[in-house]
Amino acid sequence: MKEKRTLMLPGPTPIPEHARQAGAQKIIGHREKECEDLLREVTEGLKYVFQTENDVLALTCSGTGGLEASIANTLSKGDKVLVLCTGAFGERYATIAERYGIDVERMNFPWGEAVDVTRVEKRLEEDTTDEIKAILMTHNETSTGVINHPQPLGELAEQYNCLLLVDAVSSLGGIELKTDEWGVDVVVTSSQKALMTPPGLCLVSVSPKALKAGEDSDLPKFYWSFKRAKDRYDRDTQTPSTPALSTLYVLREVLAEIREEGLENVFRRHKVVAKAIRQAVQALGLDVLVKDEKIASKTVTAIKLPTEIEFTILRQRLKDEHNVYVTGSKGKLKGDYFRIGHLGNVSRTDVLATISALELVLQKEGLEVELGTGLQAAQKVFLEEERR
Amino acid sequence: MKEKRTLMLPGPTPIPEHARQAGAQKIIGHREKECEDLLREVTEGLKYVFQTENDVLALTCSGTGGLEASIANTLSKGDKVLVLCTGAFGERYATIAERYGIDVERMNFPWGEAVDVTRVEKRLEEDTTDEIKAILMTHNETSTGVINHPQPLGELAEQYNCLLLVDAVSSLGGIELKTDEWGVDVVVTSSQKALMTPPGLCLVSVSPKALKAGEDSDLPKFYWSFKRAKDRYDRDTQTPSTPALSTLYVLREVLAEIREEGLENVFRRHKVVAKAIRQAVQALGLDVLVKDEKIASKTVTAIKLPTEIEFTILRQRLKDEHNVYVTGSKGKLKGDYFRIGHLGNVSRTDVLATISALELVLQKEGLEVELGTGLQAAQKVFLEEERR
Repeated sequence: MKEKRTLMLPGPTPIPEHARQAGAQKIIGHREKECEDLLREVTEGLKYVFQTENDVLALTCSGTGGLEASIANTLSKGDKVLVLCTGAFGERYATIAERYGIDVERMNFPWGEAVDVTRVEKRLEEDTTDEIKAILMTHNETSTGVINHPQPLGELAEQYNCLLLVDAVSSLGGIELKTDEWGVDVVVTSSQKALMTPPGLCLVSVSPKALKAGEDSDLPKFYWSFKRAKDRYDRDTQTPSTPALSTLYVLREVLAEIREEGLENVFRRHKVVAKAIRQAVQALGLDVLVKDEKIASKTVTAIKLPTEIEFTILRQRLKDEHNVYVTGSKGKLKGDYFRIGHLGNVSRTDVLATISALELVLQKEGLEVELGTGLQAAQKVFLEEERR
Repeated sequence: MKEKRTLMLPGPTPIPEHARQAGAQKIIGHREKECEDLLREVTEGLKYVFQTENDVLALTCSGTGGLEASIANTLSKGDKVLVLCTGAFGERYATIAERYGIDVERMNFPWGEAVDVTRVEKRLEEDTTDEIKAILMTHNETSTGVINHPQPLGELAEQYNCLLLVDAVSSLGGIELKTDEWGVDVVVTSSQKALMTPPGLCLVSVSPKALKAGEDSDLPKFYWSFKRAKDRYDRDTQTPSTPALSTLYVLREVLAEIREEGLENVFRRHKVVAKAIRQAVQALGLDVLVKDEKIASKTVTAIKLPTEIEFTILRQRLKDEHNVYVTGSKGKLKGDYFRIGHLGNVSRTDVLATISALELVLQKEGLEVELGTGLQAAQKVFLEEERR
C-alpha cells in the first residue's frame, strides 16, 4: 500500500473529504434559484472569514487574476502607487500594475523581513500633493514566509487618503485579517489556499471607498469588473458570467466547516502547526529564513537547505519514499531554501509525517540527524498547546 | 421519488457520470509531474476537438474572459475591427472590444439570420488602406440559435490580411469547426458547454499569425497573456498561475470520451438531437425562430412562446412538475421566445423527457396539443437516423 499523500505546499492545499465529494454534485443552471442560494451562502460565509461587511465578490479566475482585477478596477493609467515588496509576490503585484501603465514606486525590504512601517509613513508624509493613490502590499509573502501586518498601513491609508490593496492569497482563513477594523479597501484571496477548495475561484472584498475610486477608473476591464459583479449580485444574487459551480459547491462546505470550527480556533490551529514545524526543523539543526517569531508566517515556512543536499534530491526523495510534497524557493532564494506549506486542512498528523520524512531523508543523505529529534520538538509544541 | 433532472440549457450542461466523479479526486501540486501529465493530455485532447495544430491554451476563467483575452492579446488601442453581430453574443463581443478602446464597426444582421458573407466581402473590398485588423464573429449565436459558418470568413481574412477571431463558446465539440482548414486565428470556447465539464475553464486556440500580431499589442494584460501561457507550457508543460485542477480532471475524462465516440459521431448525434427537437416542437404547432435548416444551430433552439402562456409559467411548470430546465431569451427576443439547449451530454432520452413535459404543460395550460404528437415526430427523426 502506498503511503498516504501529505501535500505540504503553499497551495494548492488538500480539500476536506466531505467538501471534496461535494464538488462532484450534478451541475445546476447558473440562472436558477439553486445557484442563487449557493452564491448567497458562499458570500455570507466569506464575509465571516474576511471579517467584513463590504461586498465580497467571487470571480472565476486564480489569485493572480484577482490581483489584476484589484488594479484594473480602482486605478487609472498613470496613477502613482506605492508597492511594498518583501518578496516575489510583492514583485509580482508591482509587475501587474506596471503592465497596466500604473506609475509604480517599489519600496523594497530585505527578503525575509517585514515591511518597515516608519519608512512607509515617511514616504507618505513627503507626498504633500497626494500623488500616491494606493498602497499595494502582500499580507503573507509566500516566497519568504513573512507576515506584513496590514493594520498600521490601513491607518496610514486612512490618514493620507489613499487606498490599501492587500494580496491575502496565502493568508486569508489561515492568518487573522480584520478587513473592516483595519481599514483594508481591497482584499484578494483564492480558493486553493487556506480556504481548502480546488483552484479556480478568486474571492475579493471591496470597500465603498474602493468602489468610489473605481468610478473614475479608465483601465480596460469587462470580465472582472467589480461594478458588473456587484450590480448583478445586488440585483439577483447571480454572477455576470457562468461561475465555477463545482468549485462553489466545495467552497460552501468548507466555509460551513470553518464557521463550525470558529475562526479563532482556525487561526490558533495554524499557529500551533507553524510553530511545531519551525521548532522541529530547528531542532534538526536547520535554519529558518525568518527568525523573528512575530513576523513568521503561520501558513508557510522557508527553511535553509543544508549544503550537503540539493533541493531536487530532497524533494524527490520526500515524494518517492514518503509521499510528502514540499516546494522550492523563488527568485533570489532559489536553490538555497525550500518551503513547507502548512495551511488550510493541516493537522498534527501532517506535521509528524513531514518531519519524520525529513529526518529519514536527511539521515540517508548522510547528514548528522538523530531520528526523533524534530518529532519530539513538535510534540512539545502540541503539549504546550494542550496545557494552555 | 423525484423525477430525474433534465438540464436542457445552452450551458452549463450535464457532466457524464464518470467524468463528474473524476473531479472529486484529491488535489495535486500544480508544479508536479502529475499535473504536467494532466495538462499535456488535456491539451492533446483539445487539439483533436479543435482540429488544430495551433497552440491551445487552458485559461482559468469563463468564456467571457477568453473573449476578452482574444482581444487584449491580438489588438492595440484604436485598432479597427469588424464585429459581425447576429445576436446578443455578437453584441457582447463588440462591447468587450469597445471597453478596450478598439474602434469597433458593428455589422448587424437580423436576429435569427446568419452573417451575409457578401456584405462582409464588400466591406473588406472598400477597406483599401487595410484599416480593418480583425473580424470578430460568433460561430453559434446562442441567443438566436444560428450557425455562422467560419470557413468563407477565414478565406476573406486570409485574402484581406486580417485576423479572424471566433467565439465558439456554444459550438466547439457540438458543431464542426475546422480551425486550421478554415483559417481561424483564435477560437474561444469554455468548459461548461459541449465539452461537458464544470464551468471555470476557457480553452483558446491561437494561430502563429495571431501570436505574431500579438507581439505589437499594447493593451494591458497579465493574467491571460497568451504569450505567458504559451511560453510556460512550451517550457515545462505548466500554466503560469494555478489552474482549475479539479475541472481539468473532469475535462481529461470528457476528452477521452469524445475521442472514443469520434468527433464525427459526436457532431452527428448533435444533429439528430437538434433535428428531433425542431421537428417535435413544430409538430406541436410551435414556431422556431430559425426556419432555414442549413443555418439552424445543432446546440440550441429558440422557440416562439405561444401567446397563451408566459415564459415564467412555462419554465416553472417544466421545472416543478417534470424537473426539466429550459431558459428564456435575451435582448430583443426576451419574452417572445424560449430556448432549449441540446449540447454536450445529450441523448434521445433527454429529447423525449423534454418534449413530453412540454406537451403536458402546454395542454394543462389550455393549449390545443395532442399528447404524443411531438414525441412521434422526434421518434421519426430517430428512425430515419437508424436507417441511414
